[in-house]
Amino acid sequence: MAWHLAHALDAAHHTIAQVYSRNSRKAADLAHPFNAEAVNRIEHLSDEVDVILICVSDDAIDAVAQQLKNRNCLIAHTSGAIAMGVLQETSPFYGVFYPLQSLSQGKKVDFFSVPILTEGNNKAAEMQLDALGKTISNTVKNITSEQRKHLHLAAVFANNFTNALYAEAAEILSHHNLSFDLLRPLISETAQKVQKLPPQEAQTGPAKRHDELTINKHLELLNGQPEKEKVYRLLTEIIQKKF
Amino acid sequence: MAWHLAHALDAAHHTIAQVYSRNSRKAADLAHPFNAEAVNRIEHLSDEVDVILICVSDDAIDAVAQQLKNRNCLIAHTSGAIAMGVLQETSPFYGVFYPLQSLSQGKKVDFFSVPILTEGNNKAAEMQLDALGKTISNTVKNITSEQRKHLHLAAVFANNFTNALYAEAAEILSHHNLSFDLLRPLISETAQKVQKLPPQEAQTGPAKRHDELTINKHLELLNGQPEKEKVYRLLTEIIQKKF
Repeated sequence: MAWHLAHALDAAHHTIAQVYSRNSRKAADLAHPFNAEAVNRIEHLSDEVDVILICVSDDAIDAVAQQLKNRNCLIAHTSGAIAMGVLQETSPFYGVFYPLQSLSQGKKVDFFSVPILTEGNNKAAEMQLDALGKTISNTVKNITSEQRKHLHLAAVFANNFTNALYAEAAEILSHHNLSFDLLRPLISETAQKVQKLPPQEAQTGPAKRHDELTINKHLELLNGQPEKEKVYRLLTEIIQKKF
Repeated sequence: MAWHLAHALDAAHHTIAQVYSRNSRKAADLAHPFNAEAVNRIEHLSDEVDVILICVSDDAIDAVAQQLKNRNCLIAHTSGAIAMGVLQETSPFYGVFYPLQSLSQGKKVDFFSVPILTEGNNKAAEMQLDALGKTISNTVKNITSEQRKHLHLAAVFANNFTNALYAEAAEILSHHNLSFDLLRPLISETAQKVQKLPPQEAQTGPAKRHDELTINKHLELLNGQPEKEKVYRLLTEIIQKKF
């Protein structure tokens, strides 16, 4: 997250003043391309900045917040799953700056297409986070911590669980000496279709058609693979109830 | 399927000689742009062609095969789920010509990127189907009926079930007044990642990290939504077993 935000902010001509990490090497590596100061003690973070962005794993946010008390600048974390309140003792201005995307270090994404979800403890914090967001993304939306929790949950379905289904499909193929390449165009098209349609309208397949003959044939093929069979039965049932 | 194949074959300079449908209007509509003859009686299909492609729903293939006995040209169906043997009385040369893609009438796809899976009852049928496939696709592969059944099953996971997860995510969002647009870039990126990586390497999220705190928070949010909760528990368990 730090890597991606630093690159996006730098590209939008913001100044990355300091990079903090407990690990000096990590701080230096990220600071270097931006001529930023690397610091490995959190007390060395300056207040003379517009914003301090906390880009750490969810379970480390609280510990960082404990060390960032009574600051004067805007402070925001970047997590989808953690409520804003964790920052309430850090500054009079705090909030959340959550880019909703699956980010892998070193693999740049087009940040302008990444939605950024913001939340501020007051109007000033909110406006500043929105303004910052708009310099690096085309989609900036102010939502509550409650909405963000559900958005993060929905993202687990659309990203992590979807990938788990791809992995199940890959296993089925490899058991039958078939390359995963055969499914790649279908996976692209499936994701492409819902870029315009709502997924309810894009649904196809034997479950939607209530094609019990094909469903039973598939269940036979899954005999002896209890996990795949459970997934098949559950998702078929869910689709059938909707159609 | 008929619409897509007719357009792809025409674009590759094949002649669409005849289009048969029980519904004269449908036959005429598809035949017209190709200057083909529309026929509404299957007996009127000529043997003086290279191939007759059967593009009907799975449960209609057998009925069509019953009416296409003792022909002399190559006859192939285009289904992923039906074994080749259903055509054994139609001709000395028969087989399967299965384009693996989610096709919607009227929405053209780049057919060259669609894998075509072929099977023939003998070498001559196989070679003819492979040659035909190569004129419209970059990926043509000869597989057995047994392999094709499993490939079709894997496609249900990667396409129909994936779309069902998109729909669950969309419901979560709509319950909290959030637009599905927020997830669309994530869905694209998730499909994009596995175009190069195997899905096992692309897996991320709380289940992979065994982040029980987040998992429990998500399960709380799903309280009272038993189907979504079942999906969450099952896919989380499957991911956790792998990592």
